[in-house]
Amino acid sequence: MRVINVAAAQMGPIQRADSREAVVTRMITLMDEAKRKGADLIVYPELALTTFFPRWYMEDQAEVDSWFERMMPNAAVQPLFDRAAQHQMAMNFGYAELTPDGHHYNTAILTDRSSNIVGKYRKVHLPGHEEFDPLRSHQHLEKRYFEPGDLGFPVWRNLGGIIGMAICNDRRWPETYRVMGLQGVEMVVLGYNTPSVNSQKQAEGVEQRLFHNRLSVQAGAYQNSCWVVAVAKAGVEDGHPLFGGSLIVNPDGVIVAEAVTEGDEVLVVACDLDATRFGKETIFDFARHRRIEHYGLITSRTGAVPPE
Amino acid sequence: MRVINVAAAQMGPIQRADSREAVVTRMITLMDEAKRKGADLIVYPELALTTFFPRWYMEDQAEVDSWFERMMPNAAVQPLFDRAAQHQMAMNFGYAELTPDGHHYNTAILTDRSSNIVGKYRKVHLPGHEEFDPLRSHQHLEKRYFEPGDLGFPVWRNLGGIIGMAICNDRRWPETYRVMGLQGVEMVVLGYNTPSVNSQKQAEGVEQRLFHNRLSVQAGAYQNSCWVVAVAKAGVEDGHPLFGGSLIVNPDGVIVAEAVTEGDEVLVVACDLDATRFGKETIFDFARHRRIEHYGLITSRTGAVPPE
Repeated sequence: MRVINVAAAQMGPIQRADSREAVVTRMITLMDEAKRKGADLIVYPELALTTFFPRWYMEDQAEVDSWFERMMPNAAVQPLFDRAAQHQMAMNFGYAELTPDGHHYNTAILTDRSSNIVGKYRKVHLPGHEEFDPLRSHQHLEKRYFEPGDLGFPVWRNLGGIIGMAICNDRRWPETYRVMGLQGVEMVVLGYNTPSVNSQKQAEGVEQRLFHNRLSVQAGAYQNSCWVVAVAKAGVEDGHPLFGGSLIVNPDGVIVAEAVTEGDEVLVVACDLDATRFGKETIFDFARHRRIEHYGLITSRTGAVPPE
Repeated sequence: MRVINVAAAQMGPIQRADSREAVVTRMITLMDEAKRKGADLIVYPELALTTFFPRWYMEDQAEVDSWFERMMPNAAVQPLFDRAAQHQMAMNFGYAELTPDGHHYNTAILTDRSSNIVGKYRKVHLPGHEEFDPLRSHQHLEKRYFEPGDLGFPVWRNLGGIIGMAICNDRRWPETYRVMGLQGVEMVVLGYNTPSVNSQKQAEGVEQRLFHNRLSVQAGAYQNSCWVVAVAKAGVEDGHPLFGGSLIVNPDGVIVAEAVTEGDEVLVVACDLDATRFGKETIFDFARHRRIEHYGLITSRTGAVPPE
C-alpha cells in the first residue's frame, strides 16, 4: 500500500468583485478541513484565485492582465503556501499566469509538502473562441486570453507516487491521459470551471454535461489505470452557473467520491497507488498490447480529413 | 437527416461442436428479423462463425487452422451473403482469417447492400497471452493464434456514411476510435467475445466488466462524436460464460439500446449520421483544438516508462 490521502477541494462561486485575499481565506478554510480529515494533498480548481473571467469580453489588455498572476507565490497567495507548509500538505491549484516576457497561460502548479513548487503545467486544450460571438448564449474566450500550453504533459514524483496535471477541457481528450499514462502516471489531478449551459446548445442540460464530465474522467482513469481527481469551481458567478460534480475516480474507472453541492466542499479519499498496478500489468500493459505503428494519424494529423 | 437503420445482432453461445452451417442458419434468422425491423446494416459479433476458440489451448496447427476461414465467402457462409443481397442489407461480421500465404488474423468485413465486401479490418489489439498460463482461471490465447492486424484502422464510405470497424479489445483503446475519428468516422461497428470472468481477477464480477464495456464504448463515441455499435457473442460456451450487453451508443455518448439477454437478440436503432455534426463542429472540432505537438509519446513510445 502506497496511500495518498487526497482532498478534492471544490470551490463555490467567486464573484467578479471578490478579492484574491478573500478567495485565499476560503482556500485556507478548505485546507484546514482537509488537514482535519488527514489529507496529504489538496486539489483546488482551475483559475482558483478569481472568477472565471474568460466569460467576459475585454478589449483593454490592462484589464485582461489584471486577472493574471505575475509571480507565484505572490503576496495575496503567500498565506496559502504558508499554511500548506505548516500542514505539511502538498497542493495543486490553477491560476492565470503572465510570464515576465509577456506570455499568457492557463496554468496549474504542484507543490511538495514544504510548499516548494515542484511542477508546473500549462493548459494545452483551450476551449472556446477568440472573438466576441453573438450567436452564443455566453462567451467562452479562453482562446482569446491564453496561449496553448507549451510544456506538454509532464509527470512528477511527489508524495511517493507519480503525479500528473491537467486542466478542465484537457479531461475530455484521451491524449491527455495517454501521454501521462506512457510516463507511468498514478494520479492525475485537474481542476475545472465548466458552465452548466452549453453556449451553443442550451437544450443540452446540466445532467448531460455532468455525464460527460464523469465519462471523460472515468475513461481516462480506467484506460490508463490511474487515479483521477477532478475538482470544480461551481455555482453561480455573477449570474453565470458553473456545474459542480467534483469527483475522485479509482484506477478501475469507478467513482469513489462525488461532490453533492455547488459550494465550497471537501472530499477526502485514501488513494492506494498500488491499486494502479493490476490494470497497468494486465489489460493495459502498454508494452504488450499497444501497436504504435497503427496510431500515426494521432500525431501527424490535427483535424479530421474524411476519405474521398 | 442521413439515417442508417442499424441492427445489433447479438448471438448467444456457439458450442465447440456446432457446425458453421448451423451458425449461419442462426445468423440468417437474425437477419430476417432485422429486415422486418427495417435494418439497412446488420452487425454481428467477433468470430461469429465459431465458438470462441482462443479459450482452448492447442498445439496441433491443423487443429488450430480448422477454426479459420481460407476464403470469404465460402460455401458455409454463402447463404448469408445471398440472403443479405436479397434483403439489400449491408453487414459486418468477424471470423478467423487464414490467408493464402499462411497468416492468421482476427478479421472483420463490411459489405455493401449487394453483399460485395467493401472493407476488411484485422484486429490490432490482441489481448491475452501466447503460452498456456496455469495461473489463469481460463486461457485467452489470442496472442498465440493470431498476428496483430496489419491494415490499421481504415474507414469506408458505405450506405451514405463513413463507417469504420474495430474488434473486441480494440474498443478499450482510445487510439482505435481516434485514428478513425481523424478520418471523419460517423459510425464504428465492432463485435466482441468477452468472458464474464476476469481470468486474472475472479473477484471482479460481471457487473464491473459490463461497466468497462459501456465506459469504453461510450467514451469512444463521445470523444469522436460518432455512433458506436458494439455487439456481443454471449452466454455459456462449453461451460465458459461470455457477457452480453450489446449496445448502440449515440454521438453524445448516450446508450440508446442495450441487449437484455445473453442469447440471440436483435436491437434496431435509426442512427442519424448528421447527429455527429454538432460534436465534430464544436467541442471536438479537432482542427481547432487538438495540439499534436504535445502528443508525441503516443506514437513514439509503446510501453510506459516512469520518470527517474
